[in-house]
Amino acid sequence: MKRIICAGLGPGDPDLMSVRARRVVEGAGRVAFFRKAGRNGVARGIVDGLLRGDVEELAMDYPMTTEAPFNSPAYDQALSRFYDDWADRLADLDGETVVLCEGEPFLYGSFMHLYVRLRHRVDVDVIPGIPGMAGCWNVVGQPMTWGDDVLSVVPATLPSADLDRHAAGSEALVFMKTGRQLARVRSALTKAGRLEGAWLVEHGTMAQQRVIPLAKADDNTSYFSIVLVPGGGRRPGNAGRDC
Amino acid sequence: MKRIICAGLGPGDPDLMSVRARRVVEGAGRVAFFRKAGRNGVARGIVDGLLRGDVEELAMDYPMTTEAPFNSPAYDQALSRFYDDWADRLADLDGETVVLCEGEPFLYGSFMHLYVRLRHRVDVDVIPGIPGMAGCWNVVGQPMTWGDDVLSVVPATLPSADLDRHAAGSEALVFMKTGRQLARVRSALTKAGRLEGAWLVEHGTMAQQRVIPLAKADDNTSYFSIVLVPGGGRRPGNAGRDC
Repeated sequence: MKRIICAGLGPGDPDLMSVRARRVVEGAGRVAFFRKAGRNGVARGIVDGLLRGDVEELAMDYPMTTEAPFNSPAYDQALSRFYDDWADRLADLDGETVVLCEGEPFLYGSFMHLYVRLRHRVDVDVIPGIPGMAGCWNVVGQPMTWGDDVLSVVPATLPSADLDRHAAGSEALVFMKTGRQLARVRSALTKAGRLEGAWLVEHGTMAQQRVIPLAKADDNTSYFSIVLVPGGGRRPGNAGRDC
Repeated sequence: MKRIICAGLGPGDPDLMSVRARRVVEGAGRVAFFRKAGRNGVARGIVDGLLRGDVEELAMDYPMTTEAPFNSPAYDQALSRFYDDWADRLADLDGETVVLCEGEPFLYGSFMHLYVRLRHRVDVDVIPGIPGMAGCWNVVGQPMTWGDDVLSVVPATLPSADLDRHAAGSEALVFMKTGRQLARVRSALTKAGRLEGAWLVEHGTMAQQRVIPLAKADDNTSYFSIVLVPGGGRRPGNAGRDC
């Protein structure tokens, strides 16, 4: 009986894992998780202290990509081979394997690349998680969408023209993967007149968490930082506009 | 010692509540929850069987709004007074009150209206939850955002021109509150050439769950239905395009 369960772990605080994910993680005989080679891995860090003593651990180390530029065919090929290989390895394993994934797996999660390679071959179950961005706006302490506000979640790696268009076109905004793109995100929000209400959150809900108004942040930030702009839409009595 | 804890309950399945929310719900001496007058309330339904036998329950019945049209000043005034009154009542209570909220409280949640009225008066803690939409795309079984896909979350109550613009402008789409607006959502997606990949989900992760391709759905659907269009962006090896 082969089975793969992807456990969405939520934004970082182990108490924000779902009841089902926590049960699956604590009972797992075998876990697999992505990580940068040489690092512990974000997902693995979240479950520290929760795993069984005799658990079998499979670290899926992303291929080194310093030699091939992002978006190059060589990079795509290396990553594709990496996911193919791990899909084959996981499909060959007997019994149950729990794949650990930070955040919500179907929202920009690496597990999706295994999912599309495995779903027709073995039984795959995905447990949803609280998205990282929801953990981030929770620590900012501001409601994100009011009334008819549109929320757009935008990878900051997009061309500047797209960042500008979305910054001007939606009331509530989340920019993902802001790391080296922070200057371009700042520029898009400035042009749209939205810099004032924007927040930068690094490692939301985790120990090393950092929350600052974007206007006061410098451009050095980690890959896992998120920029949030809460919407300001319609609400009864117009209450809490200062919020 | 006064304290208000808003517990985000997630999409409906009680096992998808966070560990922290579950602990707070099970230990609560007093809970409050929104509901339509005469109904049990969605949030209250999720915690059925989890509450203490001696729990004090406060049902916050939305004011009847049949006489005043949505968006009218009278409707706004009635709702504003309703939130003012409940904020006052909750602020007056001694001890801890747990406010039950389906989904993720800061994403179109009614609790936000209490939050902005209470946060400067009493200690308020908000526990994030898995958004209802994430529960819905999980049951559809399709990853939502790949590579540089933008996800836009759009209230279907917006004017048709806005629905059209967002349908054409983002790779991944979620239409909330589709109920009576389904024909307009369908029209916007058809114009954008996106009808084919769209799904209608009613009561995602709950017992009465229903998942159908939007192209095969009729226009009678409940207020709590959601339309999802997964993105189809860049991915290594172009894998799982059929997904």
